[in-house]
Amino acid sequence: MIKAGVVGASGYTGGELIRLLHTHPDVELTVLSSRTYSGKTIGEVFNSLRGLSYQFEELTPEEIVSETDVVFVAAPHGVAMEYALAADAAGRKLIDLGPDFRFRDAVLYEQWYKTPHSCPHLLAGAVYGLPEIHRTEIAQAQIIGNPGCYPTSIILALAPLVEAGAVVDGFIIADSKSGISGAGRKADAAYNFCELTEEVRPYGVLHHRHVPEIEQELTLLAGSKVKALFTPHLVPAVRGIVSTVYAWIKPGYSLELIRGLFAERYKDEPFIRLIDEGSHPGTKAVAGSNYCDISVDFDAATSTVIVVSAIDNLGKGAASQAVQCMNIMFGLEETAGIAGLPLFP
Amino acid sequence: MIKAGVVGASGYTGGELIRLLHTHPDVELTVLSSRTYSGKTIGEVFNSLRGLSYQFEELTPEEIVSETDVVFVAAPHGVAMEYALAADAAGRKLIDLGPDFRFRDAVLYEQWYKTPHSCPHLLAGAVYGLPEIHRTEIAQAQIIGNPGCYPTSIILALAPLVEAGAVVDGFIIADSKSGISGAGRKADAAYNFCELTEEVRPYGVLHHRHVPEIEQELTLLAGSKVKALFTPHLVPAVRGIVSTVYAWIKPGYSLELIRGLFAERYKDEPFIRLIDEGSHPGTKAVAGSNYCDISVDFDAATSTVIVVSAIDNLGKGAASQAVQCMNIMFGLEETAGIAGLPLFP
Amino acid sequence: MIKAGVVGASGYTGGELIRLLHTHPDVELTVLSSRTYSGKTIGEVFNSLRGLSYQFEELTPEEIVSETDVVFVAAPHGVAMEYALAADAAGRKLIDLGPDFRFRDAVLYEQWYKTPHSCPHLLAGAVYGLPEIHRTEIAQAQIIGNPGCYPTSIILALAPLVEAGAVVDGFIIADSKSGISGAGRKADAAYNFCELTEEVRPYGVLHHRHVPEIEQELTLLAGSKVKALFTPHLVPAVRGIVSTVYAWIKPGYSLELIRGLFAERYKDEPFIRLIDEGSHPGTKAVAGSNYCDISVDFDAATSTVIVVSAIDNLGKGAASQAVQCMNIMFGLEETAGIAGLPLFP
Amino acid sequence: MIKAGVVGASGYTGGELIRLLHTHPDVELTVLSSRTYSGKTIGEVFNSLRGLSYQFEELTPEEIVSETDVVFVAAPHGVAMEYALAADAAGRKLIDLGPDFRFRDAVLYEQWYKTPHSCPHLLAGAVYGLPEIHRTEIAQAQIIGNPGCYPTSIILALAPLVEAGAVVDGFIIADSKSGISGAGRKADAAYNFCELTEEVRPYGVLHHRHVPEIEQELTLLAGSKVKALFTPHLVPAVRGIVSTVYAWIKPGYSLELIRGLFAERYKDEPFIRLIDEGSHPGTKAVAGSNYCDISVDFDAATSTVIVVSAIDNLGKGAASQAVQCMNIMFGLEETAGIAGLPLFP
Repeated sequence: MIKAGVVGASGYTGGELIRLLHTHPDVELTVLSSRTYSGKTIGEVFNSLRGLSYQFEELTPEEIVSETDVVFVAAPHGVAMEYALAADAAGRKLIDLGPDFRFRDAVLYEQWYKTPHSCPHLLAGAVYGLPEIHRTEIAQAQIIGNPGCYPTSIILALAPLVEAGAVVDGFIIADSKSGISGAGRKADAAYNFCELTEEVRPYGVLHHRHVPEIEQELTLLAGSKVKALFTPHLVPAVRGIVSTVYAWIKPGYSLELIRGLFAERYKDEPFIRLIDEGSHPGTKAVAGSNYCDISVDFDAATSTVIVVSAIDNLGKGAASQAVQCMNIMFGLEETAGIAGLPLFP
Repeated sequence: MIKAGVVGASGYTGGELIRLLHTHPDVELTVLSSRTYSGKTIGEVFNSLRGLSYQFEELTPEEIVSETDVVFVAAPHGVAMEYALAADAAGRKLIDLGPDFRFRDAVLYEQWYKTPHSCPHLLAGAVYGLPEIHRTEIAQAQIIGNPGCYPTSIILALAPLVEAGAVVDGFIIADSKSGISGAGRKADAAYNFCELTEEVRPYGVLHHRHVPEIEQELTLLAGSKVKALFTPHLVPAVRGIVSTVYAWIKPGYSLELIRGLFAERYKDEPFIRLIDEGSHPGTKAVAGSNYCDISVDFDAATSTVIVVSAIDNLGKGAASQAVQCMNIMFGLEETAGIAGLPLFP
Repeated sequence: MIKAGVVGASGYTGGELIRLLHTHPDVELTVLSSRTYSGKTIGEVFNSLRGLSYQFEELTPEEIVSETDVVFVAAPHGVAMEYALAADAAGRKLIDLGPDFRFRDAVLYEQWYKTPHSCPHLLAGAVYGLPEIHRTEIAQAQIIGNPGCYPTSIILALAPLVEAGAVVDGFIIADSKSGISGAGRKADAAYNFCELTEEVRPYGVLHHRHVPEIEQELTLLAGSKVKALFTPHLVPAVRGIVSTVYAWIKPGYSLELIRGLFAERYKDEPFIRLIDEGSHPGTKAVAGSNYCDISVDFDAATSTVIVVSAIDNLGKGAASQAVQCMNIMFGLEETAGIAGLPLFP
Repeated sequence: MIKAGVVGASGYTGGELIRLLHTHPDVELTVLSSRTYSGKTIGEVFNSLRGLSYQFEELTPEEIVSETDVVFVAAPHGVAMEYALAADAAGRKLIDLGPDFRFRDAVLYEQWYKTPHSCPHLLAGAVYGLPEIHRTEIAQAQIIGNPGCYPTSIILALAPLVEAGAVVDGFIIADSKSGISGAGRKADAAYNFCELTEEVRPYGVLHHRHVPEIEQELTLLAGSKVKALFTPHLVPAVRGIVSTVYAWIKPGYSLELIRGLFAERYKDEPFIRLIDEGSHPGTKAVAGSNYCDISVDFDAATSTVIVVSAIDNLGKGAASQAVQCMNIMFGLEETAGIAGLPLFP
């Protein structure tokens, strides 16, 4: 049994990690760490988990690392670095669900997150934890920078096109719609039920912190600079992201050829579902699962491709993707513990 | 034009008061007072009211009273008292949407709200602002204790029965379901969209502060002590209360006779709609309005009457009821400014 | 591996059965039967299940029975009877999620469902599939009448009190609030998103078909006639039932004694969670699971006990309870395939 | 008093028209026509309108026209034509909330709606009822083709740019998110509450019928062909559309200049609210009103402008915009009857 710990276990992503790891056949959950909730039982923090025997503790990074084979960090940016240093020193693995280890370049991180990076020497060995793109490196990694929710949906929507060199000019637009859980479990009146029901609204227009991550990965795949215009929106749902991605395709492609790129690229992926022509992905069909559903449309007159992807932002966009990475890192069946079907309705 | 001011104008009830008073044909809104938001424009506090020219200020009770004919106080308990003293001194009218002036007995207030009452001498002249019950006194009053949202729905559901002496033993059960806006505009993670969507849950079982108000008014109507067992529930809606009220009826009544009591009692009430047999009230049919919809069922085998009432907790349960009281106090058409139809769907 | 089939597999309960049975370690899902959707792939009927290889067929009861060890019938009342006859003839097991086999007395069924019962001779051997009450009989049964969603929540809320003889007069009130999925997957404008969002409303007052089932089981537990006044309400949620149950307790009981009855009665039940004093169950904490959460309050002044129970109507109220019964019938671990934790948020 | 009739009065748009016209100071609602609901009282069709005395009738176009000064048609495409012929013959006015009179070219209509146009001779005199664009012609018109909900939001988002000749190449992308009420009051399981809660999904990608309308009006404003790529999405809300519109701007423009175009163009418009820099429109801030909120962002590096507009699809996107047209046609105050503030929360 792999011993796992969760840091920042009291948020929504933390709760989803607990849900998945508790029933994972190869994992024993040994540490739940939370500064705020130290001393509380799990049922006090998550009514849904009443009856489980876990207790929240506050431990030092060294203590946590010593009790685990892998640490999941589901905390605000800046927190994972100290745990990574401890994990590195002890030769243990760490999966950060925040941004601290997503960037190859510490300067980029510092510029967007306005925080100095305390361990840039660990970045070279860290791997961006998107299995469909970096499976081999993940298998060897000690530290994973688990992708952001929006980037997961956008990179998977474009990878087959960008890798094939089909996209003109390296310019894409991603118009994303996200459920509210992406904002975390905050005491902020702006996230009140009454403020967000019946509300649809963009935010962070042109300035969202997921932009550099999207551009880094697409640029790597393309081999040349990709510029992404990214417009996230809040929609009145708890879970789910739909990203509607617009790109312009070089001459010579038909819808059939474009769909063929996706079919071929993802044919062995257990968690990517390419949707039949005429249908489109929706958030409800992936809720609670690790699936990413993808549709492809093409307007030949303007050479515009419209790729739509749907994920559960707490699933493939966070917790279950992190577990998928763990499975790969430890040589387990890749679907272990995350093969649960979406909850519908 | 009547000059009106709103204290605590930045909450949900305050916003609803502004919405109604701004379009009221006989009212000029002269003061919006808020400690937290002093200096802000209305559009910063309520996006929906962008473009209106109001500004939030922080004024003393004396200043507010001097600029208005009537002050609405939409603030937590304890706040209205100081404004009432100022209004009383200046001979102006005050409508408190909180509990400070709902009780005839200061001791009851202090016992349930754990706060000393600073002006018990004003209670005798204050009127419980439920027009269907106290219309004549409201017309004469200087100070109104506007009813709580739950009590409005429950007292209106029972008044015809209790007044007729039809209820056995003075014992009733009120099982109420409320939208979330009743909890106010709070920075508390427990009220986050993600926590309350798909959530139905009782709270304050046996201990809710609306109990003494319900019992006071029903006891007055009955002429003998009425005991109320009250179980409020949160449901995942913004606006609306449905109260399902159970009472036991003395021998001799049929459903027809019972319905007759309601039809007769409310036949001239512009805001009470008695629902046809076989149908039942719902919150959506009263949203944004001052209506109270009521149905009556009777189980002859156990002599149990089931009265169901529906109101908009921010409307008939708070703001539009306060405006209805104002209309009566100033001799205006009772429906002025609050005749808007429910928003559907 | 146990071969299982689902009749009426295209509805919400059918979908939940597929979700659970597909990942059940001891089950092979061999037949999905649907008249309406015969010939369709599973992904066409449930977008969430895209990628699975099941196909909907239309088979005769005999054919289905011949391909399965157990048939689940998730269809309107009246449908299960023909499958039961076939199962009985072939010596196979059947679990009906409808009402056809819930009643000991065919007359009661015919009176409430306005349908003749075609196989009353099978009723004597059928067992009401509430494991916490009838575990031993379930283990021996060939035919299970899986309980209704509301009755599950209400019977579990009262069983410890009724069995102990603590309830006065055999009269109880159950005020229930249900998510919309209980109404099924209907093409009816009354169930449109726009009609039900922000809507809370009672229905079926005094006449709901779950009344005889509640009374039958409580009467059996009490050993004397129990009369139930039942008021169901729709609330704007997909899944979940909260039942607020009022009963009157004989002299001599304190809250502590009453809570003791529950603690003792359910101490070994894997799916019943007794909530700590001061907290109350909510639907969100049981979503997607087989849990039933229960709280107990007591008003000594009126000897009224208020028991609140929460279940997922598609889970413990339907599909996962049916799987729990199957587990018991086949001697499997009782929690097999239904130990998944609730999805939160 | 202007006598108004509504055809197709039982749908969501019809209900909104009734809500507005009933309280309009200059209008008397004389006819509510519905084939399906003929003979029903208004309260049976709209619970929210219980207590009003209207009755649904089925009348011939000639009869309706003879009893009204203006007929509103809120019916599927194809229905308004017969009423328009009758109105034309009788010299009465007609406002069609469907598409029959939105196109200058009958061929375009027939191509997209697959229906022959029975009165193309009336198209030349019909006016596209977007007051901010066609106010003068509306004042003279006998027949109005009231704009579609999506086109309203998209055309208003682009008009200042397109009129100024600022947009490159005449190519724009509109990514829209709509509440469910836009789909109408249908008996279709796909619109059930349970199917759409928590669901976000595109539909009609590249093929939505609002495309030709958007292109016609933008082309007219630009003076040269504008091509629109339009991707509508359903989001789990009842009311509201947010359109996120991407266009490319010719050299020489800064954000300040671009915002200046909007400020100047809309400075006297009572229903357009230009949002301060840094904020963005949301659907909740316009719910129940005739407002259109607009924000403007500009990415200088790629010369991309992102305009976001928000309307209530049943308000400015349908019923209140139709009333605005009526006000203009009859020389009334343009805001009469539609100055109600948005309902919040």
